[in-house]
Amino acid sequence: MPKVLISTVPFGEKDKFPLELLSNNSIEYILNPLNRKLKEDDLKGLIGNMDGLIAGTEIISDKVLKKANNLKIISRVGIGLDGIDLNYAKEKNINISYTPDAPGPAVAEMTIGLMISLLRSLHISNSQMHLGKWNRIFGRRIAEITIGIIGVGRIGSRVLRRLKPFGTPKILVNDVMPDHTIDGYLKVHWTTKNEIYKNADLISLHLPLNTKTKDMITAKELSLMKDNALLINTSRGGIINEKDLFSALKKGKLGGVAIDVFENEPYEGPLKNIERCLLTSHMGSMSEDCRTRMEIESTEEIVRFFNNEQLKNPVPESEYNIQKGF
Amino acid sequence: MPKVLISTVPFGEKDKFPLELLSNNSIEYILNPLNRKLKEDDLKGLIGNMDGLIAGTEIISDKVLKKANNLKIISRVGIGLDGIDLNYAKEKNINISYTPDAPGPAVAEMTIGLMISLLRSLHISNSQMHLGKWNRIFGRRIAEITIGIIGVGRIGSRVLRRLKPFGTPKILVNDVMPDHTIDGYLKVHWTTKNEIYKNADLISLHLPLNTKTKDMITAKELSLMKDNALLINTSRGGIINEKDLFSALKKGKLGGVAIDVFENEPYEGPLKNIERCLLTSHMGSMSEDCRTRMEIESTEEIVRFFNNEQLKNPVPESEYNIQKGF
Repeated sequence: MPKVLISTVPFGEKDKFPLELLSNNSIEYILNPLNRKLKEDDLKGLIGNMDGLIAGTEIISDKVLKKANNLKIISRVGIGLDGIDLNYAKEKNINISYTPDAPGPAVAEMTIGLMISLLRSLHISNSQMHLGKWNRIFGRRIAEITIGIIGVGRIGSRVLRRLKPFGTPKILVNDVMPDHTIDGYLKVHWTTKNEIYKNADLISLHLPLNTKTKDMITAKELSLMKDNALLINTSRGGIINEKDLFSALKKGKLGGVAIDVFENEPYEGPLKNIERCLLTSHMGSMSEDCRTRMEIESTEEIVRFFNNEQLKNPVPESEYNIQKGF
Repeated sequence: MPKVLISTVPFGEKDKFPLELLSNNSIEYILNPLNRKLKEDDLKGLIGNMDGLIAGTEIISDKVLKKANNLKIISRVGIGLDGIDLNYAKEKNINISYTPDAPGPAVAEMTIGLMISLLRSLHISNSQMHLGKWNRIFGRRIAEITIGIIGVGRIGSRVLRRLKPFGTPKILVNDVMPDHTIDGYLKVHWTTKNEIYKNADLISLHLPLNTKTKDMITAKELSLMKDNALLINTSRGGIINEKDLFSALKKGKLGGVAIDVFENEPYEGPLKNIERCLLTSHMGSMSEDCRTRMEIESTEEIVRFFNNEQLKNPVPESEYNIQKGF
C-alpha cells in the first residue's frame, strides 16, 4: 500500500473528496503533522519512507530529496516550481506533476481587488476608521491610470480580461514569450520592463520565480518607478527584493504596495510597520473552488500514478531547462 | 456681485478650475471655514447673506433655509438629495441643481473592490498581517456566489456591467422602477427585496435615502439573510439601521460588511470594534476625475444661474414628490 505525505496546509478542509479519493484507491496518507509550512529539516525528517508527496510551496531541495529513498512522485498543489530541485528529482527518477490552470481565476480576481484597494486607499481608510479617524482620501479610477502587467501568461491574461469593463486605461504589458491573443480583446502596448517601471502608475507581477526573475525588482528598478507608483505582487516572494522594497518605502517612494507573497513564509518582516502596505498571507489561490480544484487535480495525479495510468499534468521539459539556466 | 458659500469639503483641492470659474464670472465665494462637514447650526450661522450654495451632504433643513434670506440657488456636488428640504426650498423660490451622473463610475468601481475584499477577507488579512499574524483565509470568487443588487439605477447598473468578466454568478436584482436594459448585457433575475435578503451571498445597496428607504434594513431584514452573507452600503447611511446592524454582527450574524456611509458623519460608532467590518470614510465618489467632474458641473450650474442662463441639471419634479411621500 503506497504511502503519501500531504505536506501542504490546509488540505481537505473545505472538501474531503481528495482524502476520500486516496482512501478509495488504497493509498495511505499522512497529513502535515506540524500544520504549518514545513522547513527543509522538517521535510527531511518526514519524507524517509514516503512513496508520494502532495506538496505546497515548501523547499524540496537536493538535501530533502536525498532522504527520500522511496519517493516516486511529487504532485504540486499549485503552479510554482521554484521550491523543487527539478533536475535532481529527475536524476532520482521522481515524477513531478502540478496544477497549472487551477489557481488562475482566484489569483486574477484577487489582483483586481488589490488594484482597487490600492487605487482608492481602502486598506488605509479601513485601518484609520478602526482607530476612530475619519479621513476622506482621494483616489484614482482604473480608467485614469497607466497599468503595467509583467507576465502575461495564465494569470496575467486573466487579470487583463477582467479589466475590460472598467474603462480604457493605458495598458503596458511585457512577457518573455509574448502571446498576442489578448490584443484582440483589449488594447495593450507590448513594451520592455524598463518602460513599464518608468511609465506605469500601477504595476502587477504575474511571473514564476526562477533564476531569471529572482531579484528582478531591486533598488535600481524601484528608483525608475514614479514616486507614487503602486506595486502588486501575487506571484512569488523573491521577485521583488524585500529589503530594497522596505528601504524605498521608508524613503517615501511608491504610493502603496500590495504584497501577498514573501521570501520567507509565514512573513515576519518589517513591511507590517508601513500603513500603505496592503499585506495578505499568500491567499491568491485561496478561493474555495480553486483550492478544491487544485487539491483534487493534484490528488488525481497521485492516484493515476499508483494505478499505473498516464499522468495528465507532468511538469514540462521547459521548466527543467529554466532551472538549468537555459 | 453674488456671494456663494461652498460648504462641501474638500473642494478645489485637486483641481483649482471650479474656483477660477467662479472668479472669472465675478462670483464671490467663501470656502467652508470649519473644513469639516457642517452641522445644521453651523450652516444657519453662515448662510445669512449668501446668494448661492455649493453643497455637500449637509442637512439643509427648513430651519437652515429660514435663515437663508438671499439664497436663490443650491447646487449639490453629488447625487443624494436626502439632506435638503426640497419642497420648503421651492416655497422660498430657491432653485436646486445636482450632478447625478458624475459619481457613478467611481462608486461602482469602489464597490467591486469592496466585494472582492469582503469575499477574500483582504481587509482582515491585512489587519492581522500588520499585527504579525499569518492566517491563510479561504474565500469565494464572484462566480461562486449569488449576488443581490438592490437599486439598479445609475450606480447599480454600472456595478453590474463591471461584474461581467468575473464569470457567471447568479445575480438577483430589485428596483422600484425596473429598467430592463441591463438584461441584454448580463443574465439577471428581477425579484423582490425579501428574496434577495434570503438568497443572496452578497448584497449591495445602490439607493437614494428617502422616506421609503430610511431603515429599509433593520433587525427583521437582517434576520432573513444567510448567516455568512456579505453586505455593502456605498449609498447612504440610514438605509441600514446602524444599531440593528451592530447587534446582528455582535451575535455573529453576517460574514462581513463594507460600510462607506453612515447615519452621522464623521462616523464615531462601535462598528470600528468589529474586525470583519470593512469601513471607509464616505469615499465612493472620491476618485480624482469623478470628484473634479462633480465640482465643475455643480459650479457651472451656479455660473449659469447668475448669468441668467438655463440650468442643465435642475432636480426633477419626481424628487420633490418623493419627499412629499408620493
